[in-house]
Amino acid sequence: MKELVFGHKNPDTDAIVAAKAYSYLQNKLGADTEAVALGTPNEETKFVLDYFKEEYPRVITTAKNEVEAVMLVDHNEAQQSVDDIKELTVTHVIDHHRIANFETAAPLYYHAEPLGCSSTVIYKEFKANNVEVPAKLAGLMLSAIISDTLLLKSPTTTDEDVVAVKELAEIAGVNYEEYGLEMLKAGTNLSSKTEEELISADAKSFEMGGKTVRVDQVNTVDLDEVFAREAALRAAIEKQNAEEGYDLFLLMVTNILDSNTRLLVVGEPKDVVEKAFDKKLEDDKMDLPGVVSRKKQVVPPLEAAF
Amino acid sequence: MKELVFGHKNPDTDAIVAAKAYSYLQNKLGADTEAVALGTPNEETKFVLDYFKEEYPRVITTAKNEVEAVMLVDHNEAQQSVDDIKELTVTHVIDHHRIANFETAAPLYYHAEPLGCSSTVIYKEFKANNVEVPAKLAGLMLSAIISDTLLLKSPTTTDEDVVAVKELAEIAGVNYEEYGLEMLKAGTNLSSKTEEELISADAKSFEMGGKTVRVDQVNTVDLDEVFAREAALRAAIEKQNAEEGYDLFLLMVTNILDSNTRLLVVGEPKDVVEKAFDKKLEDDKMDLPGVVSRKKQVVPPLEAAF
Repeated sequence: MKELVFGHKNPDTDAIVAAKAYSYLQNKLGADTEAVALGTPNEETKFVLDYFKEEYPRVITTAKNEVEAVMLVDHNEAQQSVDDIKELTVTHVIDHHRIANFETAAPLYYHAEPLGCSSTVIYKEFKANNVEVPAKLAGLMLSAIISDTLLLKSPTTTDEDVVAVKELAEIAGVNYEEYGLEMLKAGTNLSSKTEEELISADAKSFEMGGKTVRVDQVNTVDLDEVFAREAALRAAIEKQNAEEGYDLFLLMVTNILDSNTRLLVVGEPKDVVEKAFDKKLEDDKMDLPGVVSRKKQVVPPLEAAF
Repeated sequence: MKELVFGHKNPDTDAIVAAKAYSYLQNKLGADTEAVALGTPNEETKFVLDYFKEEYPRVITTAKNEVEAVMLVDHNEAQQSVDDIKELTVTHVIDHHRIANFETAAPLYYHAEPLGCSSTVIYKEFKANNVEVPAKLAGLMLSAIISDTLLLKSPTTTDEDVVAVKELAEIAGVNYEEYGLEMLKAGTNLSSKTEEELISADAKSFEMGGKTVRVDQVNTVDLDEVFAREAALRAAIEKQNAEEGYDLFLLMVTNILDSNTRLLVVGEPKDVVEKAFDKKLEDDKMDLPGVVSRKKQVVPPLEAAF
C-alpha cells in the first residue's frame, strides 16, 4: 500500500531532500512511496533543486485523504508534522533530532542518530542496504548536509557528516566548498522577503514547561542588515504570537560567515531565556558568539531552563 | 564516561540478554558500559544463563547515583524503565516496541525495528559494525529470540529473526529446536510460584486513555493448571491494583504448545477489552485462539479501543 514520505513543516533543504532520498531508497527496497513536502521550498532549496534540475515536491497539508501510513524524515514531534498525523500510522522515521511528543500504537522502524543531518543517516542506510546513490540524488543529499552543518562548521557536524559530504561530492562531481558557499549565500537573500516571511521560513514550535515556544532561524551574511528591520520584525512576531498562541518567540539571526548568532526575544517568560544562556537580555536581544545550531545550542539549554 | 545498559523492569530473557549483548558491542566500539538489570532473572532466564555459564547481571533500582547517561534496550516507555529515568540522559535505545511516553532533551541514537526481538536488532548492529559475536553471547542472543518468538511461532516473528536464530545457533553450536523447547519448558514451571509472582513476573504497564493498564503474560503447557488457581490469582490482582493504582489488569495465560491465550481481566473499564477483541467476557475471562503476542496482538487493539 502506498505511503507518503515527508519532512517537517516550513521545510528546509534537508526536510525536502531527505524525503526524496528516503523515498528513492524505500522504493528500491520494494516499497511504494512518494516524497512530498509540508510547504514550498525556501530560497536555498530552490537554488539546490534548480541547480541539480530536480522537480519541486508536491505540497500537502493533510495525508489521511490519500494514505493510511506515512514515513517521517528530519522530524518526529507532532506539532512539526502533517496536521492529521494522529490519524495516520507512522511506519518509518529517519531523524537526527531529540524525540518528543511522538507516540505510536505499534512497533515501527526508527533510525535516528545524533549526526549533523538526516541525509547523512539516510546515506548510511544506502550503504547498509548496498543501494547506489545516483549522481543527481548525491548532489541533493550533499546540499542538505552542507545546509544543516553550515558547510561542516556547525558544532552539530560529526566525522560521519564530513565523510558523507566528501563521498557524495565525488559521486555528484561537484567541488563541495565552492558549491556550498554559493548555495548558502543563495539562501540569505533577505532583502526580498517580508518580515512575515523571515519569521516563518524556518520556524519550529516546541512544548516546554507547558508553554509553546517558537524558535526561528534566519541565516545572513550581515547581522546589521537584518536588525535595521528590528521594529518591523518585532511587530510581526507580536502579531503572530497573538494569532497562533505562541508564548515565547526566539528569533535566531545567524551570521554564517563568522558563525555567531544574535537573538531577538518576544513574549514571556523572558527570564527563562536569560537563565538558559546565563546572560542578560539588552532591549530583548543578546549576542551568542559561536552559536549556530538551534538543535544543539538553543533548544537543550532552553529545555533545561524550563 | 561510563554508562549503564539495561532492559525493562520485570526483565525477561531478551531484556537481560540484549543489555549484555549491546554493552559488549558498545565496549568493542570504544564505549565504557556495564550491562545491569532492573530485576532478577526469571526461571527461563536462569536456565539460559546457567546453560551458557554466564553471570547473573547486577540488579539496580536507580542509576543517577552511578552515572549521568544510560542506554536502553528492549523498552523505551518511562514507566517500564529505571525509577529515576527522567533525571538521566538517554544516549542510545535499541528496541522493537512501539514508542510512547519517551522524551529526550537532545538528539540520541535510536534504532528500533518491528522485528521479533531486540536481540535480532542488536545482531544486525554487530554485522553492520563488523564485530564478531562470541559463541557464548550467540547462545544467549539465540535464547532471547526463541523466548520472544516462542520458538519462531509467534506472529511477531520475521524473516530476519529466523535468519538470526539459524546463524546464531551455528555460532553457538546448539540445535536450536531441541534447546529451544527445553528452555521454554524451563520457564513454565509455575507450581513453585506464588500468585504474586505469577502476576508480576512479566507484567508491563501502559498508559491508555488516561488509565493505567497492566498486562502480564504467563506461559504454560497446561491452561487448566493455571486456572485452578483463578480465585487466588484474582485476589492477588485486586490487591495489587489497589496498592499500585492500576485501573485495569489483563492476565494473559498462554499455552506455548498450541499458541492460544486465555485472558483474565480484573478492574475497569472491562467493556474496552470486549471492544478491543470484539468478544464478550465470561466470568471476566475470554479465550483468544492464536494469540501469543502481547505487543502485536493485545496492546494495539487495546490502544485502539481506548
